[in-house]
Amino acid sequence: MSDTTNVNPTVAVVMAGGRGTRFWPRSRNARPKQFLAIVGTETLLHQTVHRLDGHVSPERIFVVTTEDLAEETRRMLPELPPENVIVEPEGRNTAPCLALALVEIEQKIPNGVMAVLSADHWIGDRELFLADLDAAVAHAADKRELVTFGIKPTYPETGYGYIESEGQGPVLKVTAFREKPPAAVALQYLESGRHYWNAGMFVWTLADFRQGLQQHAPDVLAPLDAWVAAGARPEALADAYRQLPKVAIDVALMERASSVAVVPTRFRWSDVGSWPAAIEFQEADAAGNVSLGDTLLLDSHNCAIFGGKRFIAASGVDDLIVVDSDDALLICRRDRAQSVKDVVERLRAEGRTELL
Amino acid sequence: MSDTTNVNPTVAVVMAGGRGTRFWPRSRNARPKQFLAIVGTETLLHQTVHRLDGHVSPERIFVVTTEDLAEETRRMLPELPPENVIVEPEGRNTAPCLALALVEIEQKIPNGVMAVLSADHWIGDRELFLADLDAAVAHAADKRELVTFGIKPTYPETGYGYIESEGQGPVLKVTAFREKPPAAVALQYLESGRHYWNAGMFVWTLADFRQGLQQHAPDVLAPLDAWVAAGARPEALADAYRQLPKVAIDVALMERASSVAVVPTRFRWSDVGSWPAAIEFQEADAAGNVSLGDTLLLDSHNCAIFGGKRFIAASGVDDLIVVDSDDALLICRRDRAQSVKDVVERLRAEGRTELL
Repeated sequence: MSDTTNVNPTVAVVMAGGRGTRFWPRSRNARPKQFLAIVGTETLLHQTVHRLDGHVSPERIFVVTTEDLAEETRRMLPELPPENVIVEPEGRNTAPCLALALVEIEQKIPNGVMAVLSADHWIGDRELFLADLDAAVAHAADKRELVTFGIKPTYPETGYGYIESEGQGPVLKVTAFREKPPAAVALQYLESGRHYWNAGMFVWTLADFRQGLQQHAPDVLAPLDAWVAAGARPEALADAYRQLPKVAIDVALMERASSVAVVPTRFRWSDVGSWPAAIEFQEADAAGNVSLGDTLLLDSHNCAIFGGKRFIAASGVDDLIVVDSDDALLICRRDRAQSVKDVVERLRAEGRTELL
Repeated sequence: MSDTTNVNPTVAVVMAGGRGTRFWPRSRNARPKQFLAIVGTETLLHQTVHRLDGHVSPERIFVVTTEDLAEETRRMLPELPPENVIVEPEGRNTAPCLALALVEIEQKIPNGVMAVLSADHWIGDRELFLADLDAAVAHAADKRELVTFGIKPTYPETGYGYIESEGQGPVLKVTAFREKPPAAVALQYLESGRHYWNAGMFVWTLADFRQGLQQHAPDVLAPLDAWVAAGARPEALADAYRQLPKVAIDVALMERASSVAVVPTRFRWSDVGSWPAAIEFQEADAAGNVSLGDTLLLDSHNCAIFGGKRFIAASGVDDLIVVDSDDALLICRRDRAQSVKDVVERLRAEGRTELL
């Protein structure tokens, strides 16, 4: 589907306000996961935007982020008009974020079809992604349904929500959104053949999104409409935004809407949720070691070294994750990567803001 | 024994030309072990010299080192006359080093008693050390014997040479010098009660040292005497020095001399030969961890973290040695500390001189 001839041009809305502590010491308050090149050589934000090259023109790519990350986001994406980086006064979950994008964009591109993407997910197979995106955009424009992407489960993950579907074909009818399931239920979902991971990517016309919010979550929209009606003064946004409920778009809209479709995706996808997930993207050597940067491993096995500017030598060690950064170093057992959160919590409790 | 009233004043000769790779990445070619504060807050060189404060005047403390370390050695010891840092044109083992010290010092302090000390050993109990030193100096001056210090073995170490003695009292007669023994022999030595570790510290009058070298190792002395006779021109030293055999003083002199005594020491001593030895000087926490610098250890045991300028977090790891430095990091299993040598060898083979 060509961008120029489309009556309903695709508008990309990249949500890029994520924080995330699970990639400490690389990720910091001012350097969240989307700013990191933990998978591939580009940052996840760059990958997300560049994946649309030649398919969605820069004028129709919007990035929503928070005040403190806006300047760096604009610096990283000079190809976008600066005003396309939409600034949330504060993070209030995804429904307010996307409602703000709606009121900002609908004035400029009223007939647009809005594709909601995440700045910190990895997607393989660009061509398949763009084809699936086109299918979702066509469905949203033609059938006037809210469309979501469904990732085919490869194991019984209990940390994601699931989309329940029925029917056949490239676009399916959604029968329910399911919360993060217990293990036994996740296994049923995996085996059912009609459940998909909810990756938080959506496609809808701006008009349908407005109508959906008005019907199912008017409190997420009304304060923003009042702000626009009063002249959309930037300095008045924080007051309006503060009135919005902190709620996810899944809960505010998707679970309540009657006419929702899902496109089962064909591209490979990962939310790159932790260091072990990032390791999966690297090729291991014969001893099972993954090492980036200037490293030397002697008699070591199943280690992952994310080197920084310095040389790192490891000798006689197994099953370690080592992450270097300019001012901090992490060494943890590979099966304890979740304890990175404990480190970050401890730093926060001790007021070590320079390391957060 | 007071320094000023002694007819035979004590002259300290600190051998400080050591290289040593076992403390990589802290120790480097230009920053050998004696320049490091791996035990205590002062460098081992500073500790060695300051241990003599008030006992041997700075004018009678000499440090022998190599050309490349001379400037830094003088900078670190501003209290010594600069000319008291004696510069070996190259390292040729301890006999040439001490012969050079002899010909340099005997012109200034012909009646001196020379105490040979190592710049990179740790000595506890300063008062006991000074008392033992005085006993050795008195014996050397009065009995005109070559005196060595003997460290009472605390375990059957196979990496040191042993001094075999007979008799009783604070100064014993040496009956033999023994090479590094196999384990069974080391155990016999430990149990004999008359064997001591040879720590490479010696005391002798300058006159007796000259006579000993002339008798047992004339080739170590003759080229230096010729150099002095020709005017002791600094630029001519390298040519003279190159003629000296590369030999240890133990082999060149001590094993051949007939009249050698040993002072069994009462002070605590360590040659601080490796990272595990350095760990012994630190107090471990309840989980067996030793950590220096800005560190956070969660659910980790028996680790030793030698932190540098950066924060180091360890989680869920056991039995590791971690050593940070500005440009390199070492992580190794605690029982594999000797593999540091393999790392250094590999760096050398790969021409990574910036890390050596």
